[in-house]
Amino acid sequence: MRFTTLAEFAQILAAAPTVNETVKTAAGAHNAQLTKPAGSLGRLEELALWYAAWRNDARPQITAPQVIIFAGNHGVTAKGVSAFPAEVTAQMVANFERGGAAINQLSQAAGASMSVHALDLDRPTKDFTKEAAMSETECVAALKTGWDSVNAQTDLLVVGEMGIGNTTSAAAICNALFGGSAADWTGRGTGVDDASLQIKQNVVAQGVDLFGALPPLQILAALGGREIAAMAGAIARARSLRIPVILDGFICCAAAACLEQACAGALDHCVAGHVSAETAHPRLLAALGQEPLLDLSLRLGEGSGAALAIPILRGAVVCHSNMATFAEAGVSQG
Amino acid sequence: MRFTTLAEFAQILAAAPTVNETVKTAAGAHNAQLTKPAGSLGRLEELALWYAAWRNDARPQITAPQVIIFAGNHGVTAKGVSAFPAEVTAQMVANFERGGAAINQLSQAAGASMSVHALDLDRPTKDFTKEAAMSETECVAALKTGWDSVNAQTDLLVVGEMGIGNTTSAAAICNALFGGSAADWTGRGTGVDDASLQIKQNVVAQGVDLFGALPPLQILAALGGREIAAMAGAIARARSLRIPVILDGFICCAAAACLEQACAGALDHCVAGHVSAETAHPRLLAALGQEPLLDLSLRLGEGSGAALAIPILRGAVVCHSNMATFAEAGVSQG
Repeated sequence: MRFTTLAEFAQILAAAPTVNETVKTAAGAHNAQLTKPAGSLGRLEELALWYAAWRNDARPQITAPQVIIFAGNHGVTAKGVSAFPAEVTAQMVANFERGGAAINQLSQAAGASMSVHALDLDRPTKDFTKEAAMSETECVAALKTGWDSVNAQTDLLVVGEMGIGNTTSAAAICNALFGGSAADWTGRGTGVDDASLQIKQNVVAQGVDLFGALPPLQILAALGGREIAAMAGAIARARSLRIPVILDGFICCAAAACLEQACAGALDHCVAGHVSAETAHPRLLAALGQEPLLDLSLRLGEGSGAALAIPILRGAVVCHSNMATFAEAGVSQG
Repeated sequence: MRFTTLAEFAQILAAAPTVNETVKTAAGAHNAQLTKPAGSLGRLEELALWYAAWRNDARPQITAPQVIIFAGNHGVTAKGVSAFPAEVTAQMVANFERGGAAINQLSQAAGASMSVHALDLDRPTKDFTKEAAMSETECVAALKTGWDSVNAQTDLLVVGEMGIGNTTSAAAICNALFGGSAADWTGRGTGVDDASLQIKQNVVAQGVDLFGALPPLQILAALGGREIAAMAGAIARARSLRIPVILDGFICCAAAACLEQACAGALDHCVAGHVSAETAHPRLLAALGQEPLLDLSLRLGEGSGAALAIPILRGAVVCHSNMATFAEAGVSQG
């Protein structure tokens, strides 16, 4: 499937596969026979059925998770919205490539492959307080980078990001998509002080004044960043391949929110890996109807919270698919 | 170290090693140099420093986690306190031994070794509404089974349990240790109905009336079970070996609570893996000053919630010990 415009991308979202209810029912029947009190694995049971239904397999396995990190630079960094200089984006890409970042360790520990895509780092998006961050052509190119980055053989996807200034972009997207005030959606990111937080809020409010009335995918182009659009493209591609996705923190969820607002149900194949310490993340998860798996006060990005949740989902799936039934084990049912 | 009485066991608790603050400080200094915004790994940073301090190693690894399951039978099952018949304890031990239970799958997925100790299943503890569940000799034997089961070469311990009726025993222990009413500490266990819940509460109240004024380790003997005492013994042995422990649900924490009430600080080497769906577990965690890592509504026991948390602690440790520093990676600090 190919797209050359945002309208074509929206059509792909609308035509995406849906959950297989027949497989979900079969998985539920299997779950009821496993050697445990009914319901005693709690949320793991619900996760296993959801995963099975997306994989078209009542007793699935997770053997090839993929973590993809997208990096982009943001014109709004010129406003002083981050505690780190913009060159850190490229420095961290090099760190990812050498295996030195947190996400390298977490991916390896989770048995996931990991790759990094740096999107035009020497060509930051435009300052969205003045003009659209990306043209439609630029946004489509970033969506395609994400779309093409997903390995069709993978069975679980995590997308993460690196981009100095991108909590500002994500806050503007969320404020535009869901309303409220700039303050509702703007947090401290990597750790800005009070003065910079006020600047961030003003920048977000200016962007929303200019572009807040656009449709969701146009909001992604006007207020987003290349790495944010690429995450959206990868999440959509995973859906087309029936690959479940674990969402990461605020920025990942802002990318995902553009899909959901463009096409209700577009995130049915996604689960929130964690709730981060970024102040607006709980609000965003609530807007998406997502209940996070972990709550450990992370605020790093890079897909770190989602990668940390891979073993939780794997735990759900190995119990579901590999446990003995009451009959097999000769255990009396209560 | 050997003990033949509960008093000698209490002396061992009092003489146990304490956390190495020098190593913790060194680990904190290392953490501050890693390529991430300060504090952005949230609770993972705190976990890594805690783990390092107990292991006497500022950059530790987790390579050999051990999961040990203890099983015991309970005289109080004759009162009708469980939804399952008592023979399920032995049936589930066989299931553990054949690899069919949830904890087998979760241990394997977490890269942990797993073993099972069945403690005199054909000799249930006494009905504690009439007499002490165990004599001091029986309790010491169970503590020793736990003590001896810990592999000195392991670097992380999970203890779990199987024992039809043991939420009743755990509730009685907690009520005796921490006060309140029987209803405060009694939940539905594997899923009893309202009538059986009322029976459980009455049984707990009767046990506490008889034995609630005893010192903590005598409470363990009078109201506990062999698997509960064995868990306590294993947790104490881990402390003597500087092996950190992930606590499981209500029953495991009730065992641990006997140690903490016998000797304040006895659980400083422990972290709560999860908060379970058993109604009194949040209250018990609060009494122990423990903040759980996971909250996924599990209520299975078997060490399942703790085993599921192994990858979380491992994630903390691999980030801490394996990430590049700002200087190594050439990344600008904010």
